[in-house]
Amino acid sequence: MSKRRGLMIVLSSPSGAGKTTLTRKLLAENDDMQMSVSATTRKPRTGETPGKDYVFVSTAQFEEMLADNAFLEYAKVFDNYYGTPAQPVQDALAEGKDIIFDIDWQGAQQLTQAAADDLVKIFILPPSKVELERRLKSRAQDSAETIAKRMSKSAGEISHWAEYDYVIVNDDLSESMDSIRAIVTAERAKRKRQLWLGPFVNDLVQGR
Amino acid sequence: MSKRRGLMIVLSSPSGAGKTTLTRKLLAENDDMQMSVSATTRKPRTGETPGKDYVFVSTAQFEEMLADNAFLEYAKVFDNYYGTPAQPVQDALAEGKDIIFDIDWQGAQQLTQAAADDLVKIFILPPSKVELERRLKSRAQDSAETIAKRMSKSAGEISHWAEYDYVIVNDDLSESMDSIRAIVTAERAKRKRQLWLGPFVNDLVQGR
Repeated sequence: MSKRRGLMIVLSSPSGAGKTTLTRKLLAENDDMQMSVSATTRKPRTGETPGKDYVFVSTAQFEEMLADNAFLEYAKVFDNYYGTPAQPVQDALAEGKDIIFDIDWQGAQQLTQAAADDLVKIFILPPSKVELERRLKSRAQDSAETIAKRMSKSAGEISHWAEYDYVIVNDDLSESMDSIRAIVTAERAKRKRQLWLGPFVNDLVQGR
Repeated sequence: MSKRRGLMIVLSSPSGAGKTTLTRKLLAENDDMQMSVSATTRKPRTGETPGKDYVFVSTAQFEEMLADNAFLEYAKVFDNYYGTPAQPVQDALAEGKDIIFDIDWQGAQQLTQAAADDLVKIFILPPSKVELERRLKSRAQDSAETIAKRMSKSAGEISHWAEYDYVIVNDDLSESMDSIRAIVTAERAKRKRQLWLGPFVNDLVQGR
């Protein structure tokens, strides 16, 4: 038995809040942490590694897994399915490995229904509206209409901030990392996650 | 309005686990943290400062406060009452100050009933039974019977470890402090405690 049960760390944010950078840094610092790999029915794109970026399956396979209740969360986007297979996550948690989920509020809601006790839900916010707009505009030379659509999509994502356990306003990257590190350390120190404590306390009181 | 709501930090442990040292260090590091001051009906002892060590009240006063439901928790030990007045705690929390409670499992249970949302319950364990016995024996030249009584009292306290949010095995003082610091930082980053976030998100989405 692993000493501790792993964490399911959900990082959600509107695009432009800096989530990707924070996720990369967190993974680089933690050997016992990995990204969740989704299954999808869409075709692999150039540069994508099967099993690393996605597990690529047929629609029939995906629907069979759905019927078996084999997903922690899933969504259909246009004609393609995306979902998080439950088994690899359960195996990793039992081995004391933390898993990071890069999902939106809809995915986070489904994970909460499926596995509330293992979840650590963190919402990343941009420091201001001006900064959010600046970041969204800087991504490419888009039309005013496209940018307005993005701002509206961001607002929709942000509107779900209150469903998260922790909120980090990502103004200073180094301070945000300090906060995330503290959250991970604290969540690992939670009694319910320290699987070895039961036998340890037994020994402490009764004897050896 | 304060930016954040303060934490009610409960530190419980069997005697000999190192709680007093950890509490002192934590207080020394945090300006916005203070010890909870209990009210008691017992007489002040030499060296005790009223209002700092205890608030000393008469039995009639204490019982009037009890009738007014003015305590977060209380106990009667022999002929003396001890209790935590609710009002100073509520004021401190609203001002964004953290309060440390040095109480046993019975006090922690009552606080949980009275104020679960503000609580951060940490249990400190000694690293081994041998070490616990060594520390209890080293306190004074006591009879074997007295030491056996202390071990039994320790076992009683330890038996409530599972009622706490976090458990720290205090083997290395510096590592234990790192854990406690991370817990405090993480708990302060919890969404529900960051009172300023509601208006901030409103501005972020709607406008200014």
